[in-house]
Amino acid sequence: MKMIDFNRITTPTLILDKQKTQRNIQRMAQKASDQGIRFRPHFKTHQSAVVGEWFRQAGTRMITVSSVQMAQYFASQGWLDITLAFTLNWRQIGEINRLAKEIRLGVLIESEETVAFLERYLDANLDVWLKIDSGAKRTGLAWDQPREAASLAHQVLSNPKLHLIGLLTHAGHTYRATSPQAVCEIYRESVSRMNHLQQALHRFGLPFLEVSAGDTPGCSLCDDLGCVDEIRPGNFVFYDATQFKLGTCSFEDVALIMAVPVVAKHPQRNEVVVYGGAIHLSKDFFIEDGVPKYGYICFLDNEKGWSNPIPGAYVSALSQEHGVIRFGEEGFDRVRIGELIGIIPAHSCLAVSQMGGYLCLDGEPINTFASG
Amino acid sequence: MKMIDFNRITTPTLILDKQKTQRNIQRMAQKASDQGIRFRPHFKTHQSAVVGEWFRQAGTRMITVSSVQMAQYFASQGWLDITLAFTLNWRQIGEINRLAKEIRLGVLIESEETVAFLERYLDANLDVWLKIDSGAKRTGLAWDQPREAASLAHQVLSNPKLHLIGLLTHAGHTYRATSPQAVCEIYRESVSRMNHLQQALHRFGLPFLEVSAGDTPGCSLCDDLGCVDEIRPGNFVFYDATQFKLGTCSFEDVALIMAVPVVAKHPQRNEVVVYGGAIHLSKDFFIEDGVPKYGYICFLDNEKGWSNPIPGAYVSALSQEHGVIRFGEEGFDRVRIGELIGIIPAHSCLAVSQMGGYLCLDGEPINTFASG
Repeated sequence: MKMIDFNRITTPTLILDKQKTQRNIQRMAQKASDQGIRFRPHFKTHQSAVVGEWFRQAGTRMITVSSVQMAQYFASQGWLDITLAFTLNWRQIGEINRLAKEIRLGVLIESEETVAFLERYLDANLDVWLKIDSGAKRTGLAWDQPREAASLAHQVLSNPKLHLIGLLTHAGHTYRATSPQAVCEIYRESVSRMNHLQQALHRFGLPFLEVSAGDTPGCSLCDDLGCVDEIRPGNFVFYDATQFKLGTCSFEDVALIMAVPVVAKHPQRNEVVVYGGAIHLSKDFFIEDGVPKYGYICFLDNEKGWSNPIPGAYVSALSQEHGVIRFGEEGFDRVRIGELIGIIPAHSCLAVSQMGGYLCLDGEPINTFASG
Repeated sequence: MKMIDFNRITTPTLILDKQKTQRNIQRMAQKASDQGIRFRPHFKTHQSAVVGEWFRQAGTRMITVSSVQMAQYFASQGWLDITLAFTLNWRQIGEINRLAKEIRLGVLIESEETVAFLERYLDANLDVWLKIDSGAKRTGLAWDQPREAASLAHQVLSNPKLHLIGLLTHAGHTYRATSPQAVCEIYRESVSRMNHLQQALHRFGLPFLEVSAGDTPGCSLCDDLGCVDEIRPGNFVFYDATQFKLGTCSFEDVALIMAVPVVAKHPQRNEVVVYGGAIHLSKDFFIEDGVPKYGYICFLDNEKGWSNPIPGAYVSALSQEHGVIRFGEEGFDRVRIGELIGIIPAHSCLAVSQMGGYLCLDGEPINTFASG
């Protein structure tokens, strides 16, 4: 295989391992398929037509996105069944109407005001999912208020342009778990709450609605995905330091790192300063040993791409363009000013969104929708 | 004045008050001028040729940037004296050589390795500032190790292409202060440390070096800017919620907000969900009353742009595209799904970097260097 020339990298650059990415895709697609569950991966993590093709090669035909612009981009790449997993934004009704005439478009609804708005302004057909809060407390109808959900469902059914498909949830609180066991408990609780609501709505005279669920921690760690009709994980395509720390993946599954130039060394405090800051990695972090960590650290490797994480090393601070890396007992002496070092980002979705593209280990550049 | 048409805004949009911005520029330029101090504002906050012109109209001729790319952009806009306030990145020496032949370019150096590297690869003239750590502990030579700084200064002087100008510091730890008085104490301490080093180096046989200092909190709050040759504040051009909370500015000085569509309301917890997340605002936050706040909240106003902050309301959580706004006793009932609401970002520099442009209150769109 032709190998990337690290010498040509001058600024912070995301490096992608295509083999690991394809293995992650294949494994999750297979898991869903084995359990008879539809796989509708969230494309907000990679945001890229090329990575989308890798999914297509693995049999994926339906996807999830998080914005109208992302839906437009993937529709233009031949994706014809897209769920826009974001509570409907009235102000983009023009784009939504146009898109819904071209592809099968699913939207999320959680208020009667929005159904009334669509009654007036929608001039295409939409698949509708009721957005349900199964415990994450970000947004959606409460899972334990079936009367409220039933009333909204009946209102949706009264509009022939709205095709009520089911109940959708994002159990984002799995990210707050501190062990793989806790992740699975949250996942199972979330699915069980969705099934509870599903049955309650049936008793309220509604058809038996589908359930869409599934975040990366839950879908990676739980052997049994439970009674759901589809899963929508996204981050698993690359994983990241947060997932690795949570136990969601092995380090061998992490498919993306940021290569950054070293600009200064501070031996008196075992710290290295790199060109690579908040505008490259985002300011997302996880807490470990009581301190915020914006990423783990690895060395670049001309053979296999990058090394295992350096024990004890992490990104301890980020400003607009600067990153500060703190080392433990290992690794500091190997670092040289002017060379590159690798950061395993705390959050790969946001790092991709910041950077607008990546470089594969074979040297191929890949753009995301933001960069065309 | 023609007023922006808020009805045409469909997605998260930065709104800029040109009058407030110009007043902020004028005030800081005047303050420097009154004290006989050069004004070299940091353009990483606004990143825009148009806002740069407003500085030029106020007499500014020299600027600070944080990346080679930003230096190239502003050089192409006719800025001929630029300090690249980032410890020199060897891997961009090609661009640095080219740029230094076109304009007067200043760089930051803090290691002997870098001077040795430049001895070999530099083929243009550079202004050199020694980067000094006056207490922020991010990067730079320690202010209280004059022997080390003197040795590096002598090494710089031995290269005829390197013109040693002075000592530069960024007292970024003013942001960790909790009162205006504490900000001024940190600013004064930082300047006094720089003066101490300046004198020590003179005793080591070096010429009397200049001092460059000045962050937004210090330059805004301290009446006497002290014995410095130039100041480089950046954020003051727009200010933000962090500065307002720190007491650096009045709310009337905050020149930038993010207009975001409301997509859901949760009356049981006084929360509103908006289309506007980490990819728009960045995940920067400040802590108040023990909780992280990603921004304050205001209402849009067709007369004056936006209202004062709504007491008790703030952005309590951000994910990739979602923002959660928590209200206190006021304001929640006025919010309507489908309408816009305003967020005063925690950090305007990063919000600008995320968005790549803004819309002025008179309807004029302004691009930043990232968006062309």
